[in-house]
Amino acid sequence: MSASEECNIVLVGCGTVGGAVARLLTRQAEHLTRRVGVSLRLRAIVEADFTHARELSLDEDLFCPDLAQALSRHPTDVVVELVGGTTAAHDIVTCALKAGKAVVTANKALLAHHGPELWALARQQGTCIGFEASCAGAIPIIAALTGQLAADRIEALYGIVNGTCNYILTAMTQRRQSYAEALSEAQQRGLAEADPALDVSGADSAHKLAILAALAFARRIDLERVHVEGIDHLQLQDVRYGQELGYVIKLLAIARRQEEGLSLRVHPAFISTRHPLAWVTGPFNAVSVYADNAGHTMYYGRGAGGRPTAAAVVADIISIALGNARERFQHLKLWPDRCPQAEQLDIRSVRCRYYLRLQVADRPGVLGTIAKVLGDHDISISSVLQHEPRSDEQSQGVPVVITTAEALQADLDAALSIINNHPTVKAPCVCIRMVQEHPESIE
Amino acid sequence: MSASEECNIVLVGCGTVGGAVARLLTRQAEHLTRRVGVSLRLRAIVEADFTHARELSLDEDLFCPDLAQALSRHPTDVVVELVGGTTAAHDIVTCALKAGKAVVTANKALLAHHGPELWALARQQGTCIGFEASCAGAIPIIAALTGQLAADRIEALYGIVNGTCNYILTAMTQRRQSYAEALSEAQQRGLAEADPALDVSGADSAHKLAILAALAFARRIDLERVHVEGIDHLQLQDVRYGQELGYVIKLLAIARRQEEGLSLRVHPAFISTRHPLAWVTGPFNAVSVYADNAGHTMYYGRGAGGRPTAAAVVADIISIALGNARERFQHLKLWPDRCPQAEQLDIRSVRCRYYLRLQVADRPGVLGTIAKVLGDHDISISSVLQHEPRSDEQSQGVPVVITTAEALQADLDAALSIINNHPTVKAPCVCIRMVQEHPESIE
Repeated sequence: MSASEECNIVLVGCGTVGGAVARLLTRQAEHLTRRVGVSLRLRAIVEADFTHARELSLDEDLFCPDLAQALSRHPTDVVVELVGGTTAAHDIVTCALKAGKAVVTANKALLAHHGPELWALARQQGTCIGFEASCAGAIPIIAALTGQLAADRIEALYGIVNGTCNYILTAMTQRRQSYAEALSEAQQRGLAEADPALDVSGADSAHKLAILAALAFARRIDLERVHVEGIDHLQLQDVRYGQELGYVIKLLAIARRQEEGLSLRVHPAFISTRHPLAWVTGPFNAVSVYADNAGHTMYYGRGAGGRPTAAAVVADIISIALGNARERFQHLKLWPDRCPQAEQLDIRSVRCRYYLRLQVADRPGVLGTIAKVLGDHDISISSVLQHEPRSDEQSQGVPVVITTAEALQADLDAALSIINNHPTVKAPCVCIRMVQEHPESIE
Repeated sequence: MSASEECNIVLVGCGTVGGAVARLLTRQAEHLTRRVGVSLRLRAIVEADFTHARELSLDEDLFCPDLAQALSRHPTDVVVELVGGTTAAHDIVTCALKAGKAVVTANKALLAHHGPELWALARQQGTCIGFEASCAGAIPIIAALTGQLAADRIEALYGIVNGTCNYILTAMTQRRQSYAEALSEAQQRGLAEADPALDVSGADSAHKLAILAALAFARRIDLERVHVEGIDHLQLQDVRYGQELGYVIKLLAIARRQEEGLSLRVHPAFISTRHPLAWVTGPFNAVSVYADNAGHTMYYGRGAGGRPTAAAVVADIISIALGNARERFQHLKLWPDRCPQAEQLDIRSVRCRYYLRLQVADRPGVLGTIAKVLGDHDISISSVLQHEPRSDEQSQGVPVVITTAEALQADLDAALSIINNHPTVKAPCVCIRMVQEHPESIE
């Protein structure tokens, strides 16, 4: 649609985000019309269960049990999908696009799995999809990648894109809680689901990374080939050793050009306390982008929650109402439906620095043995940290922390398979990647 | 213009930024066309002196001594004004708008002084002005205010928008340089002008604040009524006392709703080391925005330099080429040419916390006297810091550092006029505002 005086909206899903969108569109209707110059009219709320909608005192005339019925009864320009998941949501988005309606969605799983197919359908129907709310909530990172940065050459993107994980890691770092304690507190405060698997496994971050990297590099991303590690195995002692060395632990979503291709990965990483991403604490999100001309830019804000996510949904509706979203979708050559497949590197080809913690027998020559194995595999040691042993540590071995220079993951794997089998090594080596400040290309 | 296959550009001014724009448009032409789906064609470079353009090996066929001549010879969609200042630049922008051309400019002084008049002219001519590069270089803050945040209610905006000042203050904080040493180093490194007055006086930040606040609050801003203090009077000892108390000094551009109106001011301020803006070091810029729905978002990046600023200019050109800039300009009710005048508060009506340093005689009862005067003026003391005196300090008095709770500037002024005249006070009190973390309205 091009800008007219009215934009008619059907909202599907009225949970936390849907409810916030409905309230925003109804309670702030006059303010929105005054600011935007187009009247944003919520025509129907499609939901199976209207309990939450009633709790929010939304107008019962808006309630409708079925999308097809809503579309047949109301003039509709935009369908907002906020049901989540990849089954019903896929049907809703497909149905809306086939009816020629623009779609706004916060559904990262749907786009990470089915993006190219849905974008192609939108293009075929002459419409578009707004998805700012799918990645990092209120942070306008999709707007930045398809706006300010659209014509730049992006070298790398580093994101803290899961508020649950960042809350847990901040609690471990600042309050010295164990992973289990921090998770439990996050659950009590409504910052983690009862089943936290999607968040803490890194899967949610991988969905967002797939969407962001596709736009940043104008490539189709294979989600299955994104390397994903979660935070659920992290131990407090490693967080603390890292701090001692001047590093903070974060769950990072990383997309980075290497000579041979694109490295796409989600994993816990130590970053220097001097890096801007180290400052992002609690449930906040941030995305750092390194572009050839713009240099380093970073975007920070609330990655989740009803109102912040609703703000992103409404911004997308406005962009569609003004015709901007469609112009960008039709002209810019960034959307995966018309981009080639990325050359995604295997994690074994990634070069990185590493933090290693070994539990070794307190006996002469052990460090020498380990250092030799690393050296034989072309891995240089940057620093070694070994405290005088506490009496309770003797049986599990003494912790030795080693940081390496940049090394190839394949070389490290080979070295660790030897080290872990050495009789003086009491437990499998703990290995956490270290992420360096990305160089800028600005002269 | 609405999106067509070609966008023809005339560039006026070929200095650091102009040269970078010209190189970007010519050297990366193919990449731009491929990404943007519209061919961005640089048709002419208007300059009086082509020395720099020749050094950059720009095509001499592009050189043209006069804008009118360039417009008569070449099809033109966008005129890019990068000459700076408010005299010639005003003529260039007016001439381009009157010819119905869209304008892109990085000129904050021009827009801060003449924005409403120029936006009105653009509206009358059915065209628009892109000015992303005028505030905070590569940071897409104009895009955020007129995009993601356009329909939100913004409560406050805090910006570090002058890289020269931030570089100097970072050097004073981290390397304990005096103001003069830090300025001299910034000049040597090309980060400060030979005459640094526009930057260090806060005037440049005030220009940017006027532009940002106009969009954030949809109000016309009177630049003359923005309260401006620079950094040139700051003393290293105050930076260090602030650090001791957990604060970092920054030159902040602040726009904040208070009950009675809008507080607009540029001044050095102590902010907590825990606030995200405290992390912004060296020549980097950042803008923190607190909005009713989105909550706290922050935008960080390079605020100056040829290529980062050129990236913002090219992003504006693309937005114009796709028709997006004009749609937003025509529909959104944010631009000052059709907004009411802001109710700008006098600095005396601003409520703030204060850092005070007094040089007092080392004698009983002095602190009590000062505390009584503050109390009489409704100013509560938050903390007092007084070190044991060094022998060399006796003659100039002993430094006593006081931080206050939130107080009215008018009350503070009245208290200080009494304190500064007290016989035990050896020198006028040093007074630096303290900026608290802004509360978010997110439930």
